[in-house]
Amino acid sequence: MDEIQREELAGRRARLQAYMEQENMDGCLVTQNVGLYYWTGSMQSGYLFIPRSGESTYYVKKSLVRALKEAGVRTVELGSFRQFGAKLAADYPETFAAGAPAIGADLDVLPAQLFLRLQDAVPSAMWKDASSIMRKTRSMKTASEVAAIRRAARIAADALEEGLQQLKEGMTELELMAIIENSMRRQGHIGLMRMRGYNQEIMTGVVAAGEAAAVPTYFDGPAGGLGLGASAPQSSSARPIRRGEPILLDIGCCVDGYTIDQTRTAVIGEMPKPQLRAYEVSAAIIRKIERMLRPGELPEKLYQAALDEAKASGLADHFMGFGADQVKFLGHGIGLEVDEWPVLARGFNEPLEPGMVLAIEPKFTFPGIGVVGIENTYLITVDGFDTLTVSPEKLYAL
Amino acid sequence: MDEIQREELAGRRARLQAYMEQENMDGCLVTQNVGLYYWTGSMQSGYLFIPRSGESTYYVKKSLVRALKEAGVRTVELGSFRQFGAKLAADYPETFAAGAPAIGADLDVLPAQLFLRLQDAVPSAMWKDASSIMRKTRSMKTASEVAAIRRAARIAADALEEGLQQLKEGMTELELMAIIENSMRRQGHIGLMRMRGYNQEIMTGVVAAGEAAAVPTYFDGPAGGLGLGASAPQSSSARPIRRGEPILLDIGCCVDGYTIDQTRTAVIGEMPKPQLRAYEVSAAIIRKIERMLRPGELPEKLYQAALDEAKASGLADHFMGFGADQVKFLGHGIGLEVDEWPVLARGFNEPLEPGMVLAIEPKFTFPGIGVVGIENTYLITVDGFDTLTVSPEKLYAL
Repeated sequence: MDEIQREELAGRRARLQAYMEQENMDGCLVTQNVGLYYWTGSMQSGYLFIPRSGESTYYVKKSLVRALKEAGVRTVELGSFRQFGAKLAADYPETFAAGAPAIGADLDVLPAQLFLRLQDAVPSAMWKDASSIMRKTRSMKTASEVAAIRRAARIAADALEEGLQQLKEGMTELELMAIIENSMRRQGHIGLMRMRGYNQEIMTGVVAAGEAAAVPTYFDGPAGGLGLGASAPQSSSARPIRRGEPILLDIGCCVDGYTIDQTRTAVIGEMPKPQLRAYEVSAAIIRKIERMLRPGELPEKLYQAALDEAKASGLADHFMGFGADQVKFLGHGIGLEVDEWPVLARGFNEPLEPGMVLAIEPKFTFPGIGVVGIENTYLITVDGFDTLTVSPEKLYAL
Repeated sequence: MDEIQREELAGRRARLQAYMEQENMDGCLVTQNVGLYYWTGSMQSGYLFIPRSGESTYYVKKSLVRALKEAGVRTVELGSFRQFGAKLAADYPETFAAGAPAIGADLDVLPAQLFLRLQDAVPSAMWKDASSIMRKTRSMKTASEVAAIRRAARIAADALEEGLQQLKEGMTELELMAIIENSMRRQGHIGLMRMRGYNQEIMTGVVAAGEAAAVPTYFDGPAGGLGLGASAPQSSSARPIRRGEPILLDIGCCVDGYTIDQTRTAVIGEMPKPQLRAYEVSAAIIRKIERMLRPGELPEKLYQAALDEAKASGLADHFMGFGADQVKFLGHGIGLEVDEWPVLARGFNEPLEPGMVLAIEPKFTFPGIGVVGIENTYLITVDGFDTLTVSPEKLYAL
């Protein structure tokens, strides 16, 4: 790892340390693979301890050999889990000597069983939930992170083109998805888009058409899809794609750890009028939101503005899902995970800042008919935004 | 859902209820998607409450519309999470009236933050860790589960054949993997093999060759692989496959929710003598273990027998990884997840029973040279075993 990369990692840890200061935490323990990668440059199993000030230590279980090569931080063997508390206290006497240090951890992903074992192993710690400050730290992307998202965007655009070139009537959703996935995979997609949310799964998005696209699902997004049955109840199904129905192409890939997320809508032949109109409302919402995209704007205001536009168009019932299955957001942060902060939803009222990357996805669901919409990924810049999505934004009529 | 399927689901819940009786739990709350599917037939987000006796209830958050169609159990809307405790108490007066019922949950996967919120929402419950009894229940597969694993095995075998037919010198590991994945995907693979372990990821296994296959990694398995960099540090890399080096083809897929896991070893040209010998030791271990595979045998004895054989062959240092990166097991249960129980490892001393499905994977790692081995998936029958893996077991010399 070169000095620039080491400095970037140190800067990321310093940002978390600044939040610890605000929250009065004495240290943070990072347990999740994605967090470990973000703050160390390595994803080997173990724990990263970041004290409120001073040097961090990566306690590695497996593979230490590999972590020593990859990590840009002090790296040691974890050793006995039961002795972890003693080891931490020896390495960080200032943090632990005083008595009951407040230690934050990524409790939104750390399994309860392991959390209980950590409480036993580090009995003096007063555990806090540090997921918010970890997610806030990660919401601001550096230039190298944005560059990785741009590489992913290029690959997704190529894959979309390859899929659309081969798309024909009667091809199943799964066949079309397999072409797109294969293209992304050959170009370096790791095979899935990482998600933080419990029980959430996404490989390469949702490619679905007609009524199958509009089938509701557990997935925390505006479009679910019929999927391959009750055991894989989202995304592409084995249903043939027919002429004259909306085809939802909500795809993404993960390259060098970073994820892009984008949606385009296609049709073989002609789009039915109501869905054509809904597509145009999606485009109008995208334009309206782009005019608001700049540092200082509040995420929840973007959601409200989109909702107002959907209402004004008489399409509120179809916006971001249908009926009881509507989701209450317009978009989400994206980076190492597909469901990062900020969420463009009520309650997210900390202003946008330069470096945030947002996937914005106005969509309309028509049960029995299909889903239409647009999703672009944007970087917030000092005076506005930059579109990271590469695929041309249009209705793809084939 | 037909009556047979409903009865099968009821039988699965009854098995868990029998364990609750033994463990003195008054009920179990299933929170994980895979558990929900196993016990309800649906994977929509929510919570399944299984009382120690009597009817279970699936409290669904999203999509209720879909869960009502899919689930073979009483299904209601979750509603307010804060009121969940009151709702449970109203639905299960016998369980909750007495005071502090012992409620088990899948704490090995449930995130701590959500666990803390559940403790607030259901304040009267005394929470217990039910992961062991849930995993034990799931370790015994029914005929329909075995049939799904057989379908996955057929697809994996077809995909392996397709990959090997196209394999040629200079093709990268990722290119070969992409062919195999594409074949499996078109045949219904959901795109990943589900894993229970925290921070563990697997899409379709490990296709890796030469020294890249022998690179250690966090992955809790005998072979890791170089992968696509520090952000995806396992499985296939962009390295070309060369003549005369071991090619590890550890692949699997997930079809109708169920997973197969298999390993074959290939070579273009001739296998170097030491690795040829190690391959033969893998085969000898497989044969030795097959002779022991029957109800009543202890999982830890299978591991010990394999270890003894590796030691007798002078290959103990290379067995199941190398040096500090060795893993201490010979195989694992498999079904809805790839890392099920029992594990063939020390401490697993409850006897094998008919219906268990095991992936057994003796492998030898040679740093700088490669990994060789065999992995078959077996069903334990009343008087022995049945091999579920379909691919011919041999060294594939091309």
